[in-house]
Amino acid sequence: MDAPRPTHETLRPIPLADVTIDDEFWSPRLDTNRVITLERVYDHLKTNGCFDNFRRVVGEAGGEFEGQMFIDSDAYKWLEAASYTLATREAPTLERRVEELIELIDRVQAPDGYLHTYFLLADSATRWTNFTVMHELYCAGHLVEAAVAHYSATGEDSLLSVARRVADHIDDRFGPDGADRIPGHPEIELALVRLFRVTGERRYLDLAEYFVNRRGRDPSPLAGELGRLEELADPTIYERNLDSIESVRRTYCDDTGAYDGRYAQDHTPVREQEAVEGHAVRATYLYAGAAALLRESADPELFDALERLWTNLRTRRTYVTGGLGSDFEREAFTADYDLPNESTCAETCAAVGSVFWSQRMFELTGEAKYVDLVEQTLYNGVLSGVSLDGTEFSYRNPLETRGDTHREQWFYCACCPPNVARLLASLGKFVYARSNDSESLYVNLYVGGAVETSLAETPVALTQESELPWAGDVALDVSVAEPVEFTVNLRVPEWSDEARVAVNGEPIDTEATDGYVSIERVWCDGDRVDATFPPTVEVLRAHPDVRDDVGRVALRRGPIVYCLEATDNAEPVHRLILAGAESVRAVHCPELLGGVTVLEGEAATERMEEWRTELYRPIEEIDREATAFRAVPYYAWDNRDPGAMTVWMRYA
Amino acid sequence: MDAPRPTHETLRPIPLADVTIDDEFWSPRLDTNRVITLERVYDHLKTNGCFDNFRRVVGEAGGEFEGQMFIDSDAYKWLEAASYTLATREAPTLERRVEELIELIDRVQAPDGYLHTYFLLADSATRWTNFTVMHELYCAGHLVEAAVAHYSATGEDSLLSVARRVADHIDDRFGPDGADRIPGHPEIELALVRLFRVTGERRYLDLAEYFVNRRGRDPSPLAGELGRLEELADPTIYERNLDSIESVRRTYCDDTGAYDGRYAQDHTPVREQEAVEGHAVRATYLYAGAAALLRESADPELFDALERLWTNLRTRRTYVTGGLGSDFEREAFTADYDLPNESTCAETCAAVGSVFWSQRMFELTGEAKYVDLVEQTLYNGVLSGVSLDGTEFSYRNPLETRGDTHREQWFYCACCPPNVARLLASLGKFVYARSNDSESLYVNLYVGGAVETSLAETPVALTQESELPWAGDVALDVSVAEPVEFTVNLRVPEWSDEARVAVNGEPIDTEATDGYVSIERVWCDGDRVDATFPPTVEVLRAHPDVRDDVGRVALRRGPIVYCLEATDNAEPVHRLILAGAESVRAVHCPELLGGVTVLEGEAATERMEEWRTELYRPIEEIDREATAFRAVPYYAWDNRDPGAMTVWMRYA
Repeated sequence: MDAPRPTHETLRPIPLADVTIDDEFWSPRLDTNRVITLERVYDHLKTNGCFDNFRRVVGEAGGEFEGQMFIDSDAYKWLEAASYTLATREAPTLERRVEELIELIDRVQAPDGYLHTYFLLADSATRWTNFTVMHELYCAGHLVEAAVAHYSATGEDSLLSVARRVADHIDDRFGPDGADRIPGHPEIELALVRLFRVTGERRYLDLAEYFVNRRGRDPSPLAGELGRLEELADPTIYERNLDSIESVRRTYCDDTGAYDGRYAQDHTPVREQEAVEGHAVRATYLYAGAAALLRESADPELFDALERLWTNLRTRRTYVTGGLGSDFEREAFTADYDLPNESTCAETCAAVGSVFWSQRMFELTGEAKYVDLVEQTLYNGVLSGVSLDGTEFSYRNPLETRGDTHREQWFYCACCPPNVARLLASLGKFVYARSNDSESLYVNLYVGGAVETSLAETPVALTQESELPWAGDVALDVSVAEPVEFTVNLRVPEWSDEARVAVNGEPIDTEATDGYVSIERVWCDGDRVDATFPPTVEVLRAHPDVRDDVGRVALRRGPIVYCLEATDNAEPVHRLILAGAESVRAVHCPELLGGVTVLEGEAATERMEEWRTELYRPIEEIDREATAFRAVPYYAWDNRDPGAMTVWMRYA
Repeated sequence: MDAPRPTHETLRPIPLADVTIDDEFWSPRLDTNRVITLERVYDHLKTNGCFDNFRRVVGEAGGEFEGQMFIDSDAYKWLEAASYTLATREAPTLERRVEELIELIDRVQAPDGYLHTYFLLADSATRWTNFTVMHELYCAGHLVEAAVAHYSATGEDSLLSVARRVADHIDDRFGPDGADRIPGHPEIELALVRLFRVTGERRYLDLAEYFVNRRGRDPSPLAGELGRLEELADPTIYERNLDSIESVRRTYCDDTGAYDGRYAQDHTPVREQEAVEGHAVRATYLYAGAAALLRESADPELFDALERLWTNLRTRRTYVTGGLGSDFEREAFTADYDLPNESTCAETCAAVGSVFWSQRMFELTGEAKYVDLVEQTLYNGVLSGVSLDGTEFSYRNPLETRGDTHREQWFYCACCPPNVARLLASLGKFVYARSNDSESLYVNLYVGGAVETSLAETPVALTQESELPWAGDVALDVSVAEPVEFTVNLRVPEWSDEARVAVNGEPIDTEATDGYVSIERVWCDGDRVDATFPPTVEVLRAHPDVRDDVGRVALRRGPIVYCLEATDNAEPVHRLILAGAESVRAVHCPELLGGVTVLEGEAATERMEEWRTELYRPIEEIDREATAFRAVPYYAWDNRDPGAMTVWMRYA
């Protein structure tokens, strides 16, 4: 295979196999993900029809197709997660399951490369006619991502061959030289760029570019389908997708019934889009794909658009947890500063997609602000997607609940659990990065472990110890066979304003450029960098246009966002009023919730007996009484007695 | 006709014809209602098919039935409003229109008494089968109320005869000796009690009692219809009602699909209900009817239920404007303390219904707290339902909008405009009341004008001058032919805590009992009561469980609730932070909005340039700058340049 041919200088991740993680916070989580969650996901897919659909195609199982139209993608996401695991450790049972599943998929694939179990089992006449709803390209994208992960992890091309046949099948039919179509749900764009990177096949890149650039231009291929949805599938399909033809049309149209396309980012070309709109997972997947594309070919206009969209997300449409997508029903963005805490969707998959997108933006720019959002999202809005024991998952991630929202063991639409699994299993990809000229190493996440790479054409090993997120000390030890000059860029987290860095005990200037302290020197074996990013308590307010956060504050310490849970507090959490930012203190509790630092402080509540008979009272008549509160990390909520929870605490 | 036979001592309103209104605040509004609004409503009903439907039945117009199934009720509400007007003044054109319409209705009525234009025009086989949706009893109720108003105003029984035939038709078929049915939308209960009062026919009272008591008992007649909705009407009817069979079923069922009935207060017997639930108009109409019933026959259990329900409404489910019904889509109550400001319904009709209900509760008890809610609702949530010029109406009455909510000239579902019209036209009924023994006069609302009545078997006239709502002085002058002993009960408004009262210049004790200062004495001609209820500015907070009002305050002065409108303020209203309750001052502006006292004061806003790039910032880094604000009466909002509005102002 040809090597990828980047066309301009950018950053690139370190291959997963070159990074090990040995970290007090993350290692137990990754173990749980590997041992418990991957097993759980596998078991659910074994029993919910997902694997059986593949077996049915080759006559090894009876019955009818089960699940939603895109249920194949859950198998692929599981394969991708499993492959990341196999990249870094031996896991014979997992390896056997991966091989069995790949072997099955290989047999399921049609001779012409087509691969989507619903259409292989039935209704073959409407293959490739209903891109709006049927998600064939979405599933193909997940297959390709799994194949790239499997090939990178094992060096074997068993799944990659299947994926290439799928990609070739698609490329033969659609895109620059084929029929004019775009996916209803982006995903294949990023996948095709990744496939290009491992295969060097330029046409995969061209197809990704086509899908990105075609989007939002008139006439929309999706708009053309909307009027004919009845012909383009057995109408019961829509119910299977928890949908109806009417609601699909409403979703894609404005109030006048005219095609709008915003829901699938098809309202205007990407490079002209001003704000993140529509279904949040679709949006982040599309923009992650577009950013990945940009690493291969410079396109300032597209880059400007992505930077503008990301800035819109970051400064107007992201929850403090990193969650995104305010509209519960549509799983979609709404308007700037519209961030309801209780009724939100904030889908786990959208947080995962946000990490993918931000990481690619970092890779294009080397700017730490993108990694800041990766970190914010990972520690909060992604981790909240799975229970501490790895067996229960959240689809929605509200920042406030009266106690009626909980993680579940599984979902009919089960996109989120394997998505968290694949992100956690690939955490190593986010810790370090290397400049394209291999002269600089970026330390992006403070996660203990090691990295082995090549810098200035010299093998370099670096071990990291980190006390984050609970304490701030980080140590980096350099191993090199001989002295070599390169740069180590330490990210200064946005939450840190007392960073200290020393090289071999000598303090250095911590003035950061693009969010990094750069240490450029000739490194010798045994050199050591000591850094401290003390995680101090921050009492945050939201932008005044966020109406749902008026009079409230969020507590953050380092990268961790906190919440109040009923089980920790004598008073109902929504009645607790922070008595003063200075009263909040951090207390580490090794036995609690797998070991967490909690925040405790002084609070007040209004005297409730005086409110018993009144709904509105003059402010000067309202008395308060002192109480205390305890807040726990948001990611750990709903792991004990169920009850009310809120991230945003009353302040006034 | 037999006289009504009250069975226990209660309060009763003074007949409308005995009260005149001559008040700086109210008279211009009542003139606008009489001259402009009644005319507008009439014109709309003339062109929107409402009157034509009646003509179609008698072959005087062509075409098909137009409008919603209950569109007849709009004609009846207009007749009721017009009749109240005729009770107090000559209005030849109005009188002619009333007579013409009554004559038409009389001819439309079927020989058996049936009267509902949709079924008279078509689909007669399904008459009286679909009480859930078709609202035949609801329309009958409004006809009866119009007839009672017309009879009381004119002494003529032209419409009353029609109404009696309708009531007899219903009584012959349903109720104690007929088929077991209840209305989907309460309204007929109150109407039947009123009909009993003017006719003395006990069976109307019995039928009302049956409808009230049958409600919420198993098996529900409405539940029985739900499974057969397809058979019980032409399915297009549901669309005509802006509805669908599916949504009707969802509305009446819980998440499991089991009958719930809460939407129509049919979930449990009224006397066992604990909280106001379901569609807010249905609820207030039902409870107003039940309370009216109680004035005729003591029923402590039912009274306790109504008191409990009213207390639930007052202390947990009413907006500070008197609005009610938090759920936009269902126009319904939701949960205690769930009072969203922007997404609410707060239907004008529900505020009107709340006034009806509270007034009947006062009549049962003589307690001023019920009148307090009447006053709060009249001055705010009812008056907001019509523009100052009387030509535009609101269906919803949100307490906050970003500028996209406005009054409209008319609605397809036009229940609200004639409902406001009939309430304003009958304002005189709410100003005074008299004890059943005729020994006490209650002065409930401070509205200038006069009342002529009989106290202690002596004719008494009382004139009232009132500066409310803008200033607090009230004067009452007594005219009697000879000295006579009776009691004058002056309501001390709940917002007043500096009340002063003097009789003939001599201050008297203002200690109130059940909210009234009682002045029991031998009154002589020329006696004068001077009272002062200074309307001071109150900065109100909501109960801590009202999540949408956290960190916010509402400004009230006397009975008037204020709001911030974009047109008066240089900064966006949602960003204005009240700088201190003591800064707020009242300024009377005779030229503004028909003459209003505005509130002005000091405010702050956060420095927005520092928020440009951040969505969340540490509280200690947030700077504010001083500004000023102006608030106007909520009832007067949206009468100038359209824009954002909020009742609840940031306080922190």
